[in-house]
Amino acid sequence: MITTDILIIGAGPTGLFAVFEAGLLKLKCHLIDALPQPGGQCSEIYPKKPIYDIPAFPEVLAGDLVDNLMKQIEPFQPGFTLGERAQTIEKQEDDTFIVTTNKGTKHHAPIVAIAGGLGSFEPRKPILENITQFEDKGVEYIIRDPEIYRNKRVIIAGGGDSALDWSIFLSDVASEVTLVHRRNEFRGALDSVEKVQELKNQGKITLITPAEITALSGNDHLESVKVKRGEEEKEIEVDHFIPLFGLAPKLGPIADWGLEIEKNAIKVNNSLDYQTNIPGIYAIGDVNTYPGKLKLILCGFHEATLMCQSAYQRIFPDKRYVMKYTTVGGVTGFDGSKKEAPKAVVKAIE
Amino acid sequence: MITTDILIIGAGPTGLFAVFEAGLLKLKCHLIDALPQPGGQCSEIYPKKPIYDIPAFPEVLAGDLVDNLMKQIEPFQPGFTLGERAQTIEKQEDDTFIVTTNKGTKHHAPIVAIAGGLGSFEPRKPILENITQFEDKGVEYIIRDPEIYRNKRVIIAGGGDSALDWSIFLSDVASEVTLVHRRNEFRGALDSVEKVQELKNQGKITLITPAEITALSGNDHLESVKVKRGEEEKEIEVDHFIPLFGLAPKLGPIADWGLEIEKNAIKVNNSLDYQTNIPGIYAIGDVNTYPGKLKLILCGFHEATLMCQSAYQRIFPDKRYVMKYTTVGGVTGFDGSKKEAPKAVVKAIE
Ligand SMILES: Cc1cc2nc3c(=O)[nH]c(=O)nc-3n(C[C@H](O)[C@H](O)[C@H](O)COP(=O)(O)OP(=O)(O)OC[C@H]3O[C@@H](n4cnc5c(N)ncnc54)[C@H](O)[C@@H]3O)c2cc1C
Ligand SMILES: Cc1cc2nc3c(=O)[nH]c(=O)nc-3n(C[C@H](O)[C@H](O)[C@H](O)COP(=O)(O)OP(=O)(O)OC[C@H]3O[C@@H](n4cnc5c(N)ncnc54)[C@H](O)[C@@H]3O)c2cc1C
Repeated sequence: MITTDILIIGAGPTGLFAVFEAGLLKLKCHLIDALPQPGGQCSEIYPKKPIYDIPAFPEVLAGDLVDNLMKQIEPFQPGFTLGERAQTIEKQEDDTFIVTTNKGTKHHAPIVAIAGGLGSFEPRKPILENITQFEDKGVEYIIRDPEIYRNKRVIIAGGGDSALDWSIFLSDVASEVTLVHRRNEFRGALDSVEKVQELKNQGKITLITPAEITALSGNDHLESVKVKRGEEEKEIEVDHFIPLFGLAPKLGPIADWGLEIEKNAIKVNNSLDYQTNIPGIYAIGDVNTYPGKLKLILCGFHEATLMCQSAYQRIFPDKRYVMKYTTVGGVTGFDGSKKEAPKAVVKAIE
Repeated sequence: MITTDILIIGAGPTGLFAVFEAGLLKLKCHLIDALPQPGGQCSEIYPKKPIYDIPAFPEVLAGDLVDNLMKQIEPFQPGFTLGERAQTIEKQEDDTFIVTTNKGTKHHAPIVAIAGGLGSFEPRKPILENITQFEDKGVEYIIRDPEIYRNKRVIIAGGGDSALDWSIFLSDVASEVTLVHRRNEFRGALDSVEKVQELKNQGKITLITPAEITALSGNDHLESVKVKRGEEEKEIEVDHFIPLFGLAPKLGPIADWGLEIEKNAIKVNNSLDYQTNIPGIYAIGDVNTYPGKLKLILCGFHEATLMCQSAYQRIFPDKRYVMKYTTVGGVTGFDGSKKEAPKAVVKAIE
C-alpha cells in the first residue's frame, strides 16, 4: 500500500504543480497516471509545439514546460505510479480514501485531487479479432521501454507523428522496422517525414503503403501478421506489432465514483477551493467544470494552489497556516535541499 | 482623452498579464500606474530577489519576471500612463467610464480592471516643515529620470537598498553625492554595502552618519539643507535632496469609488469573473478579496484571464467567443506580428 498526504490522479501540468504547492505546506504527494510518462496532454499530444500563453513565457515548448515543472517539484520528491489507471475509490471509516489501479496497486491518502484532464489516455486499437490475446505478448499500443525491441523485428502501423518518430527511433534499435499506413501520405512535422524518406532510401525502414494489417497469428507470443495492400495479401514474420493510432482520453472509471458530472467534467465549488460533492475529493485543471471555466494550463495552476490550502486545513483542522512568500521563506525540500534569496546584511560603512 | 477597451489601473504582474489575455481577444488595453515603471511590487520592492513559486520557473528574479511579461505583451501594444495616480472615476450615461489621474490625464473605456495590488505606492516623506514647497523643485522622493542629476550636487537620505543603489548609480552622474543615514549601519545586499564603502574610500560618495536632515532652504528651488550629526549642525549647499525612506502602498482614492471594501481590499465575485459590485468594474490580483483569496502572482494571472473573457462578453454581448489554444491559433499582434507553431505537413513518402 502506497501512503501519502495528497493522492493526485493525473500527472499533467496541473497535477505536477500541485506537488509544488503541497510541498510548500509540507504535504507529500503521489501521482497516478495511465501514461508511461508525466506531463499529460503536453507530453503526449504536443511536446514539440510552442505554447504562448503561459504567464511570463513569451514562448515555451510543451515538453519544456513539463521539464521545468518536474525540476521545480523535484525537492518535494513526489511518488509516481505510471502506466496504471486509477480504477476504484473506497472511502474508509476515518474519511480517508483507498484508490486502486487497473493493475491492482493500492494507494491510501486523506485527500484525493483529481487532475485527470480530459480523462485517462487510452490507445485507439485497430479492430483485429484476436488482438487482446497478444497484448503485451508482441502487441503494444504505447512504447514504454524501447529496449524491449532491441534486435527484434518490428511492424509499426500509423500515419502521424508517433508512427514516424518511433520508426525513426527504432530503426537504430530493432533488427527490422516496417512501417504500414493505409494512405501514401503521412501527416507530421516536415523533418520527421523527410527523415523517414531518407531511412527508407537507405533500406533501414521498409515502407508498405497504402496497406493495412488484417490478421495476427502466433502461439504464446505474436509470430506473424498479415498485410493487405490492394488485392495482394502477404504474411510477414515479426516479433512486435505496434499500432500507433493515437490516444483518446476517456473520463473512464472516475465517472462512476459518485461525483457530480456535467459535460463530461467534474463539477466543483469554484467559489471556494475546487472541492467536489464528496468532501476530501477535489478536482482541478481540465477535468473540472464551473461557471466560466477555461481549460487552460494557467487556470490549473491557480486551482491546484487553492486546493492545496484547503487540503491543508482539512488535514490539520486546528493549525492556522500563515502563508509566507517563497521569496521571503525560501523553499525547503523534503530531500533536505534549501533554496532561499540572499539575505540582506546590516553593516556599518566606516 | 485616452480611449481604450480595457483600462487597467495598476501595472503590476496582474495588470500586465491582463494585456496579453485581452490581446488574444483583440481587446486593447491601457495601464495607469503611480510608479514611474511597470512591474508593481516586483519592480519596486524586490526586483533582484528570486521567486520560487511562479509555475514552471524553478527560480526567477522578480525583475526578470516583469521583463518577460513586458516581452510577452509587446505584440499587443499597451498604452501606459506612468507616474500618475488614478484619482476619480465617473460612470457615463452609456455605462462607460472616465478615469482621471491626479495630474488630470483622462482615460475613457467601457471596462475598468483594477489591478492595484496593495494600493498605489506613495513615498514615505520625512517630516520637514516646508518640504512640500520644494517638491519637484529640488526634492524628489522617487527617481524618475536620473539625467536631471547630471553634474548636480545631490544629497540622498536613507539606509536601505534604494539609498545604497541610487548613491552608487548617481556617483557616476552627479557632481557630488552625499549619503545621510540616521544610523551607522546600512541594510541591504552585501555587494551594495561593499560598493558604497569602496566609493566612499575613493572619495566619490560623502557619507554622513548617524545624522539627519533637519531643515531645507532656498527660494524658487532648493539651495541648501541642514544636517544634524550628534550635537553638530551644518548647512550644506545642494541642488537636490532625495529622501529614500521607502514606498508605502495606499488603496487611496479607489476606496471612495463606491466599491465594496473589506480588509482594505475590493470584494469580488470569484465564483464568476472577479467583477465588483459595479458592473463593468473588475478587481484582479492582490487588490481583491474573496473567500480563500491568496495574494500570489499566479492567482492574479488566472483572475486576469477570467476577467478578460467576461469583459469580452460585456463589450460584445451578441458575439459568441470560442476559445482557441495559442498553440493552435497562434498569437497575432496589433503590430502585425504573428507567432505560430510550425504546421504539420501531409506528404507522401515514395
Ligand atoms: C494541441 C493542443 C494545444 C494546446 N494548447 C494550449 C495552449 O496554448 N495553452 C493552454 O493553456 N493550454 C493548451 N492546451 C490545453 C492544455 O494542454 C491542457 O489545458 C492541460 O494539459 C491540462 O492539464 P491537466 O493537468 O489538467 O490535464 P492533462 O494534461 O489532460 O493531464 C491529465 C492526465 O491525467 C491522466 N488520467 C486521467 N484519468 C486517469 C485515471 N483514471 N488514472 C490514471 N491517469 C488518469 C491522463 O492520462 C493525463 O496524463 C492544448 C491542448 C492541446 C491538445
Ligand atoms: C518582498 C516580497 C516578496 C514576495 N514574494 C512573492 C512570491 O514569492 N510569490 C508570489 O506569488 N508573490 C510574492 N509577493 C507578492 C507579489 O509581489 C504580489 O502578489 C504581486 O506583486 C501582486 O501583483 P499585482 O499586479 O496584483 O499588484 P502590485 O504588484 O502590487 O501592483 C499594483 C500596482 O498598482 C499601482 N496602483 C495602485 N493603485 C493605483 C492608483 N490609484 N493609480 C495608479 N496606480 C495604482 C501600484 O503603484 C502598483 O504598481 C511578494 C511581495 C513582496 C513585497
